[in-house]
Amino acid sequence: MGRWIPGQARNDKNMNGFRFKILHKDKKTNARVGEIWTPHGVMKTPAFVPVGTQASVKSLTPDEMKETGVQIFFVNTYHMYLRPGIEVVEKLGGLHKFMGWDGPIITDSGGFQVFSLGRSDLVKITDNGVEFRSHWDGSKHLFTPERSMEWQWKLGSDIHIAFDDCTAYPVTHQAAKRSLVRTHSWAKRSLASHQKQKGSQALYGSIQGSVYEDLRKESATFISSLDFDGIAIGGVAVGESKKEMADILDWVTPILPEEKPRHLLGVGEIDDIFALVEHGIDTFDCVQPTRLARMGRLLAQNEIDITKKIFAEDKKPIDPECQCYTCTHFSRAYIHHLFHVKELLAYRLATIHNLWFVHRLTHDIREAIGDGTFLALKKKWI
Amino acid sequence: MGRWIPGQARNDKNMNGFRFKILHKDKKTNARVGEIWTPHGVMKTPAFVPVGTQASVKSLTPDEMKETGVQIFFVNTYHMYLRPGIEVVEKLGGLHKFMGWDGPIITDSGGFQVFSLGRSDLVKITDNGVEFRSHWDGSKHLFTPERSMEWQWKLGSDIHIAFDDCTAYPVTHQAAKRSLVRTHSWAKRSLASHQKQKGSQALYGSIQGSVYEDLRKESATFISSLDFDGIAIGGVAVGESKKEMADILDWVTPILPEEKPRHLLGVGEIDDIFALVEHGIDTFDCVQPTRLARMGRLLAQNEIDITKKIFAEDKKPIDPECQCYTCTHFSRAYIHHLFHVKELLAYRLATIHNLWFVHRLTHDIREAIGDGTFLALKKKWI
Repeated sequence: MGRWIPGQARNDKNMNGFRFKILHKDKKTNARVGEIWTPHGVMKTPAFVPVGTQASVKSLTPDEMKETGVQIFFVNTYHMYLRPGIEVVEKLGGLHKFMGWDGPIITDSGGFQVFSLGRSDLVKITDNGVEFRSHWDGSKHLFTPERSMEWQWKLGSDIHIAFDDCTAYPVTHQAAKRSLVRTHSWAKRSLASHQKQKGSQALYGSIQGSVYEDLRKESATFISSLDFDGIAIGGVAVGESKKEMADILDWVTPILPEEKPRHLLGVGEIDDIFALVEHGIDTFDCVQPTRLARMGRLLAQNEIDITKKIFAEDKKPIDPECQCYTCTHFSRAYIHHLFHVKELLAYRLATIHNLWFVHRLTHDIREAIGDGTFLALKKKWI
Repeated sequence: MGRWIPGQARNDKNMNGFRFKILHKDKKTNARVGEIWTPHGVMKTPAFVPVGTQASVKSLTPDEMKETGVQIFFVNTYHMYLRPGIEVVEKLGGLHKFMGWDGPIITDSGGFQVFSLGRSDLVKITDNGVEFRSHWDGSKHLFTPERSMEWQWKLGSDIHIAFDDCTAYPVTHQAAKRSLVRTHSWAKRSLASHQKQKGSQALYGSIQGSVYEDLRKESATFISSLDFDGIAIGGVAVGESKKEMADILDWVTPILPEEKPRHLLGVGEIDDIFALVEHGIDTFDCVQPTRLARMGRLLAQNEIDITKKIFAEDKKPIDPECQCYTCTHFSRAYIHHLFHVKELLAYRLATIHNLWFVHRLTHDIREAIGDGTFLALKKKWI
């Protein structure tokens, strides 16, 4: 690997609104290289989107995020709603000013977290929205499509996601169908609410339908027919197998309008990345690289568990080929020691490495699509 | 306050060995400005010495340490001995290489930690040394002056401290006297052992004597009579009052040879700093600024507890006058939020601020001594 200097989201004063441009299409697969223009800069796709759930990408400053190749990241509306509160972020000038980040940000609708984090015995779904109790203090709250849209505007993120009803896994066809009707109704309400706002923030519609082919295709068709700026595929990585996920992509992606950017929610392991890029997915968020980092699991062609004793006296960097700050400054032995004695620096150095790794990989994928060598690169990795 | 850019320990290829130069003496107090030349660069004194107990200054990279004004820091031999082990650090090229830090490092003898962290029912002091059980796993170990010296050479720190017998507080005069005899015997053994090694690392002798005037003076006289490169004052900040600490400084410092650098072990609150600089102390280490940071207590003319609710919507930086990375990039509200949701970035941003604050303060103290305005600066702060 040659030297790679992470490129940053480009800020162009002449930019006007949200745009997606496809720059190059792979001839053998559906992979594509493109650019997404947002109010806070242009990013190159396919792009990995790290997760900064609580308005912080675990342990990193905005400067470091840029140095590790972050172009855009994910903030969870549900978490912002509970702490510090949407109104607080708004008063402080929105997420960008609050966090000191001047690049693009994507927020979700809050729906997924309501289902996965809310106390499940107390989540009540009606056609109007979702009533739930906080996983922090048990207090009662109501999320609706209109509220979710309003909050995402207040947060000021560049890409918003429509409020949807995310089913658990497994779910019966009957229940998934019932949920899908609701998701589609909420999609229309989300869009109507979004369109009342002034600004060039984008709204992505969200496709559901669990692991059922007819429902997924119905949802892809319906969401594609609406005037969304992009398409999100939701309800994956909720427990289904990799085979089932691949099936969903096989069913859904051929239906999607080519000119709209596509985001896959919650997926980003290395083998997944190749699979989803191959299906023409443009962006994908995942907590995996940052979460693994905090456990001492460091990404490389062969993942390393740095907490293992064999690394206690290992002078080599995590990955001798890697040029991240961690690999160019510290030995495996030192990082092993930091994890062993639970020093805060451990989690940070590991996070830097893992994020650099994924961003470097997506960079290589973009280059390979441009060069017509995407499948060869995939073969090298998988 | 004008803009301050932290100066770094200067590396000069023509430097030869350990040296202390007094550059300026205050006319009204015993305060002095100087330079300590070590194998890893020159530092300006009076200097604050942050603590990196386990070979890491909590959450910071070496680059960041430099950016916050760190010239030198403290590593605890006791901790290195237990984890990762002295031999491991030695194999990895010593502390500097292990941590990626090219400036000066000071280590202690391990004695203080044996007494304060070892299981007290299992610490056995003989004239030979101290036998104790690890606070980690209960395993049995023996520290002697010779071993402590050998270990500090293996760690490769620039300034070593003689092995001493640190009494608890309070202690009877009789017990303190008995302990002092041992400390002085160990001082001679430490020095003899140190002098067998080749290299320009320095050894500081350590003064004990608890809160007893006769013992402190006896110890100051004895330690000053030996061929140490510098003098450490130990057995303070172990529970005695600020008044008692001031008394100790009053008794001890007039006895010390002026041409040797003086280190005060374990002291560094703001009022302490002025008191000890006034007594002609050149360096002083303390966990306080980094420990307070992790609790959300941020240093300023009036300390701030950022975890308090009143900061939840406060757009101002921690200290509007401060030019540290944290204060020039983030609001109180954001740091409050990070602490509230326990994000790792919280501890880091707080540590950066507190270290910058103390280093900025010692910088101002050095300038004030040079300008003859030290007492005026003290009055402004105390």
